[in-house]
Amino acid sequence: MPCHEGEVVLFSREEEEERDYYQEVRKYTRFEDGSVRLRNPHVSEMDQDILYHLALGSGSHDLVEMFSDVKFVCMGGTPKRMESFAYYIMDEIGYKLPAGTTLLDISHRSYRYSMYKVGPVLCFSHGMGIPSVGILLHEVIKLMYHAKCKDPIFFRLGTCGGIGIEGGNLVISESAVDGLMQPFLELPVLGKMQRKPALLDKQLAHDLKNLRRECDPFTITVGKTMCTYDFYEGQGRLDGAFCDYTEKDKLEFLNRIHAENIVNMEMESLCFAALCHQAGIKGAVVCVTLLNRLNGDQVATPKETLNKWQEYPQMLVARYIKKSLGLPVDVPQRDHPQVVKCPNKHRIVRQESESVE
Amino acid sequence: MPCHEGEVVLFSREEEEERDYYQEVRKYTRFEDGSVRLRNPHVSEMDQDILYHLALGSGSHDLVEMFSDVKFVCMGGTPKRMESFAYYIMDEIGYKLPAGTTLLDISHRSYRYSMYKVGPVLCFSHGMGIPSVGILLHEVIKLMYHAKCKDPIFFRLGTCGGIGIEGGNLVISESAVDGLMQPFLELPVLGKMQRKPALLDKQLAHDLKNLRRECDPFTITVGKTMCTYDFYEGQGRLDGAFCDYTEKDKLEFLNRIHAENIVNMEMESLCFAALCHQAGIKGAVVCVTLLNRLNGDQVATPKETLNKWQEYPQMLVARYIKKSLGLPVDVPQRDHPQVVKCPNKHRIVRQESESVE
Repeated sequence: MPCHEGEVVLFSREEEEERDYYQEVRKYTRFEDGSVRLRNPHVSEMDQDILYHLALGSGSHDLVEMFSDVKFVCMGGTPKRMESFAYYIMDEIGYKLPAGTTLLDISHRSYRYSMYKVGPVLCFSHGMGIPSVGILLHEVIKLMYHAKCKDPIFFRLGTCGGIGIEGGNLVISESAVDGLMQPFLELPVLGKMQRKPALLDKQLAHDLKNLRRECDPFTITVGKTMCTYDFYEGQGRLDGAFCDYTEKDKLEFLNRIHAENIVNMEMESLCFAALCHQAGIKGAVVCVTLLNRLNGDQVATPKETLNKWQEYPQMLVARYIKKSLGLPVDVPQRDHPQVVKCPNKHRIVRQESESVE
Repeated sequence: MPCHEGEVVLFSREEEEERDYYQEVRKYTRFEDGSVRLRNPHVSEMDQDILYHLALGSGSHDLVEMFSDVKFVCMGGTPKRMESFAYYIMDEIGYKLPAGTTLLDISHRSYRYSMYKVGPVLCFSHGMGIPSVGILLHEVIKLMYHAKCKDPIFFRLGTCGGIGIEGGNLVISESAVDGLMQPFLELPVLGKMQRKPALLDKQLAHDLKNLRRECDPFTITVGKTMCTYDFYEGQGRLDGAFCDYTEKDKLEFLNRIHAENIVNMEMESLCFAALCHQAGIKGAVVCVTLLNRLNGDQVATPKETLNKWQEYPQMLVARYIKKSLGLPVDVPQRDHPQVVKCPNKHRIVRQESESVE
């Protein structure tokens, strides 16, 4: 990986075994040139493949022309957050748009997900919960295949409840478990339960953690994430429409999972980890904690602070992308609108223009 | 129920037992005046209850003033479809807005769901999948409680794959099962698996079915719905990013569930049924089939036809609402914009106004 040149990285036996496993998986998930290969023999036999929820199709769109340069896929919950991220990463990597153009939500016509492309970075909103992120992942992995993308890296940038971690700090998931502490995604397929291991790339998590700077206002914890199918009872909250347990029961549960190295809870990582792993795609889940669940259920932090916190996963992932692209990590490529030479004069022009009748 | 005055309805013993059960459940889910009571003792003790994903709060908003007149809650997948439904039901029931006003997405600031209110009808988008509809239901049920709504009826208006039913027809779910044919929602709560029966109101399904007219372009089937956690492998599709079964395996599976009275597949009904049932709320799931899954996986129908089909569940639910409100069922209260006296002259005014320089 380019971001490891010159660094010494020590691997344990377990990590070496994992690397061997990934080499084995590569046979099924990559063509010789590194482009994505599907573990589904049917798709290549189809006349055309419609990616319904993205409003794209292999017969209708030139997906190679549109997407073959994609190296990073970043996804998060809401369209708004991911649109902000698209503009943020554009400045961070100094990606230039032709004069008089702006970003377009490529999947706008699907009314399901939003999708922005900023050079090598593809940004998606994935909605809430495993089924929603699962549909997106199926279609994005197929998009990578149709577009002949080479070794793309996937990131989920999310929010979560911390377990023993105060609000406003980052958690990078080492792996994901379900609400019963099972380390796999269970999915009934043709009437039989199928289990997909929910493993994430340890090296990628390690590399991301190393990008923390002394001056960062957040800590970074690498640990296990509990991924649930419900926000209220599923996460042991007392404030849902239903609750048949006490505060004491809740705290016993949270302390029990905390003792088993669960450091946060959210609702997508299990599926994200399982589908990336099955596709042989390196994936990382970077979430900011909105509160420490050991102290309560409802988020009382002001909106402005929450908005600030939600930028932390974006900052860390942007550093990784910049490092991978050989750009300086600690400064953005641009800190003002891209066609502007002088921000001060720009401000005056805008002001005058608006006041003219 | 008002829409049954003068009609003779026969109940089987099973249905009578169900009615008795509902009477029993009512004790826990309704106050004496019929307003919604929560099966959660904690909420009434909270200083304020923030409905995060709706951008509303019991401390910040006068929820009684805003919502106590709600009688019907209608939900469907996308914000766009539910916005259309809001304007459609406004004309159907003849609800008048003050001059110079338009509908507002009440939950706009949550960036999660959309929410429109048209008099006694509340319309929500619920996103895709069980966790997404589940979060919404928790918060809408709490909203009903805070607003002191009396005996609200919930509808899901959706799309689905038909099993043995061609595209463009309606299915009303009799009950829902998961991908293993289990008739309940399984959810880990505090580390233990909890099961919530996924039952729907039989009388409501029956009443809705009876609202079909001879001239309708669709059939209506009442049957069991399989609700899955995934759109691709979870529904036995061959066109996902992963597939390790053959077309023959798929068809055997679909025929097997068809033989067990499963007539359609979608991704929300299990949770919708389970949470409505637990809250003692009468709920119905009305979906239009987009294709017959016994014939294929991909939807090849033109967009215009699909859009037309998506109006069918809205038509049926609108008839029910009109009947309940004592309005004539077969005609809308208004077939042109509400402040317009003469559509022809309105067209001319608009045309002239647009062409003036």
